Amino acid sequence: MARWQPGANERLIVAAVDLFTEQGYDATTVAQIAERAGVTKSTFFRHFPDKRELLVAGQETLSRLLADGIAEAPADAGALEAVAAGLERASNAMGPANRALGPRLKAAVAASAELQERDALKSIGLAAAMTAALVARGVAAPMAHLAGEMGVLAFKQGYAQWSEHDRADSDGLAPHTLAALEDLRAAALSLSRLQD
Amino acid sequence: MARWQPGANERLIVAAVDLFTEQGYDATTVAQIAERAGVTKSTFFRHFPDKRELLVAGQETLSRLLADGIAEAPADAGALEAVAAGLERASNAMGPANRALGPRLKAAVAASAELQERDALKSIGLAAAMTAALVARGVAAPMAHLAGEMGVLAFKQGYAQWSEHDRADSDGLAPHTLAALEDLRAAALSLSRLQD
Repeated sequence: MARWQPGANERLIVAAVDLFTEQGYDATTVAQIAERAGVTKSTFFRHFPDKRELLVAGQETLSRLLADGIAEAPADAGALEAVAAGLERASNAMGPANRALGPRLKAAVAASAELQERDALKSIGLAAAMTAALVARGVAAPMAHLAGEMGVLAFKQGYAQWSEHDRADSDGLAPHTLAALEDLRAAALSLSRLQD
Repeated sequence: MARWQPGANERLIVAAVDLFTEQGYDATTVAQIAERAGVTKSTFFRHFPDKRELLVAGQETLSRLLADGIAEAPADAGALEAVAAGLERASNAMGPANRALGPRLKAAVAASAELQERDALKSIGLAAAMTAALVARGVAAPMAHLAGEMGVLAFKQGYAQWSEHDRADSDGLAPHTLAALEDLRAAALSLSRLQD
């Protein structure tokens, strides 16, 4: 396996997340983020318009990957199979930089009320993107909403396991998110059967 | 039925939500909220420490009602039956003031990025409260997470229907949230069976 060499984009995100943890989101400047990442301020601005967008950019990419995977699932795939296709597409786009970011991002979010709000909005945005992609496939509203929420839970759960896991292994993210979705499917079945 | 007479607490919330819609959250001052509600600034501060807490206060009450209802459901109730008990408890605490607030709150949230983040955090907080109450009953983690999310979806869906519905009827909120939960249960069953 080739050694992973982070690009400026990834270094900027890691630097920003670490600085948000150490000194808070508000107190962190673009100049500090650029310095920590070892690039100039103008390199920062070639990648991101401001420090807020640095976080939003990742979310938009993730939403698009999830929705594209759902849209391109085979026409006869059920709603959860389509969600699995979305998770697979998004998971396969995540590399070592995303894995290393997990624990750092968790620490930054735990330390900042503003980042908790951003993170909450991110979850809602991902669920909405998946729900809309399912509705576009003809899935009825309550099922599309529920399947979208299951997709977000599976992504978060799988990502947490992957990024907190022993880093020596070379597993991708996909087995983790797909296993989490399968756990949720089994949970949905016993939940909904209990009251039959 | 006795005519509903809003108290200062409810008038302050309605005034705040309307002002947030009209002029934005940041631009709205405590003095303006108090004036619109027809009370003094010191009355405002007897009810809320600041304008942010005015929104958070309702969320904490709602989380507590949902969690209490889940905790006090019969010991042999399944996870979704416990969620239904939580929804019933919270729904029965909602009166005409809450109903009238629905469309206003929706407009305020649509108009403000800051309120969208607050609203997203609120959904996450409600789901976390329900999930924790279910885990305390011994429900396994993936099922508790999923049932908590279903509770939030049912509450939001039921509340939207109730507050956008013909106001002349005297229905409470509970039939709407419970019907939404039943729709989600049926959706969970067909979702999870599709891949059996």
